Amino acid sequence: MITTDLCIIGAGPVGLFAVFEAGLLKMRCHLIDYLPQVGGQLSEIYPQKPIYDIPGYPEINAQDLVDNLMLQIKPFKPTFTLGERVEHLAKQADGSYIVTTNEKTQVHCQVVVIAGGLGVFEPRKPAVENLEAFEGKGVAYMVKNPETFRNKKVVLAGGGDSALDWTIYLADVAERVTLVHRNETFRGAPDSASKVFDLANKGKIDLILSANLKELGGNGTLKTVTLEGKSKEEIVLDADYLIPLFGLSPKLGPIADWGLSIDKNAIEVDTRDYSTGVERIYAIGDINTYPGKLKLILCGFHEAAIMMHSAFKYVYPDQKLSFKYTTVNGVNAF
Amino acid sequence: MITTDLCIIGAGPVGLFAVFEAGLLKMRCHLIDYLPQVGGQLSEIYPQKPIYDIPGYPEINAQDLVDNLMLQIKPFKPTFTLGERVEHLAKQADGSYIVTTNEKTQVHCQVVVIAGGLGVFEPRKPAVENLEAFEGKGVAYMVKNPETFRNKKVVLAGGGDSALDWTIYLADVAERVTLVHRNETFRGAPDSASKVFDLANKGKIDLILSANLKELGGNGTLKTVTLEGKSKEEIVLDADYLIPLFGLSPKLGPIADWGLSIDKNAIEVDTRDYSTGVERIYAIGDINTYPGKLKLILCGFHEAAIMMHSAFKYVYPDQKLSFKYTTVNGVNAF
Repeated sequence: MITTDLCIIGAGPVGLFAVFEAGLLKMRCHLIDYLPQVGGQLSEIYPQKPIYDIPGYPEINAQDLVDNLMLQIKPFKPTFTLGERVEHLAKQADGSYIVTTNEKTQVHCQVVVIAGGLGVFEPRKPAVENLEAFEGKGVAYMVKNPETFRNKKVVLAGGGDSALDWTIYLADVAERVTLVHRNETFRGAPDSASKVFDLANKGKIDLILSANLKELGGNGTLKTVTLEGKSKEEIVLDADYLIPLFGLSPKLGPIADWGLSIDKNAIEVDTRDYSTGVERIYAIGDINTYPGKLKLILCGFHEAAIMMHSAFKYVYPDQKLSFKYTTVNGVNAF
Repeated sequence: MITTDLCIIGAGPVGLFAVFEAGLLKMRCHLIDYLPQVGGQLSEIYPQKPIYDIPGYPEINAQDLVDNLMLQIKPFKPTFTLGERVEHLAKQADGSYIVTTNEKTQVHCQVVVIAGGLGVFEPRKPAVENLEAFEGKGVAYMVKNPETFRNKKVVLAGGGDSALDWTIYLADVAERVTLVHRNETFRGAPDSASKVFDLANKGKIDLILSANLKELGGNGTLKTVTLEGKSKEEIVLDADYLIPLFGLSPKLGPIADWGLSIDKNAIEVDTRDYSTGVERIYAIGDINTYPGKLKLILCGFHEAAIMMHSAFKYVYPDQKLSFKYTTVNGVNAF
């Protein structure tokens, strides 16, 4: 069991900066994120894209902002559980919480801070009837470890950068790679698309365009992927793996079941301290809503600062909060 | 008459960033500040000191933050009136405002944004009975143009950096400089203090320690400054100018008379949009107050963003606000 003052669910920019504001009040944090790295959407969706609306940065690459935030919170020694999804909250007799993930990691904390952004990003699934029956038995929605696919027959589906990039990468790893795409052209980078066409021309991969996934076959584990081609003909492919790469879609996930007040996929909070209706649970950043709410990173930063001054009483019930500015002595005094 | 969408009173970090958020909604801004440069307290009080609590900057010098903000708002072409103090607000029949400064500069705007920080920084005045009678007639609280003092008899009073620095500077300009300080040691930089002692030893200035200002003399304009010395003796100095340099102290100023709801030197606002009780007047940054308020720059940034979405209706009464993120196309699209 991990023990901490605050458990922050979500290690995006707002969750990370919350560690700083907590640290100034001598509160320590453990962060949990479903993604395998910190940074939330910034690192997962557009790490190399510039952001223009972070105050004081006329332009900054998303990943650089994440790196700077990590540096900024380092003095406060946050700890992380990454690649796991929070499943369950259990209130203890003394008011504290135990947070449990899908991997059974447990965190005991005085306060829960939900900084979950737009929620957990789940893969968009193609409409194939028996798809879910083969999940974990041949169907994978992301490539966690490319070695899984060594010397296997792999079918990839999709037309974006992920589909193109993994096709190119796995061409050298798998026994055979087939890329299936419903159109004739790709949405991904033109350079990657031309590499894929080149691999297909050289016979190193199979490229099947204007085709859709139709049906999966196999007895317990995946054996075949059936496509519907341009002229409605059926194409049956031998396959050990099917990797549909149709992007990610945000879902609130188990948080929706914690008795919080939810409005349109967001948690309603009190603007005085960004508390939810449930004692000791706060929500900050894109996951909360209130009158006038804007889904901006800079608003989440503000919410994190305000919230910590309210959470202090649960961590230090016997102390009076004394707020010191960092300007003169820096953060090492905290 | 200057015409603009929004008149921002205060060109500190929050007033500056407000230009950015206004710009994203195609609203243009004119800023007025009593200080001769932008940046507010950051530039005036601690330009070379590092700040640690700007999200994404583990450490940044105050002046660098100001410079970055100026760069960030440049695409939105803000205009400035600096070194003037807003004195008067006049509501027009159509709801718009005319803002007038002490120098009679007038700005016509649809919305007034008060981003005045801790207020106008006014000089701390020594307790000398007839001091104010000689203001502008020999008594000056800051050195705007050193040439004013060329070949004049100047008495400076104070023990900080300003007093030391101006003593050293004016030693070469004035006919005679006398520095009066109530203690034997200086608060200012040791290096500057030793320069001042050196000038006094060489007879280039007069240094009178452990003495206090007591009385001013003159018929309409300043002629003499009377001090009380260490042993309660009176010292009478011939003087064309007295420059008391006892630091700056924040005052709300004329804003206090605009019918706004004021609580402990701050303007009460509605957290839904940081509006004051008076239509078309908003207050953001350190000058406002609301339940949970923290006087942090990052909170002012948030308030600026939220506020602009509310002000939009006064600038574009016939348009529906459509909010676009900057991430993909940058600010040039706005």
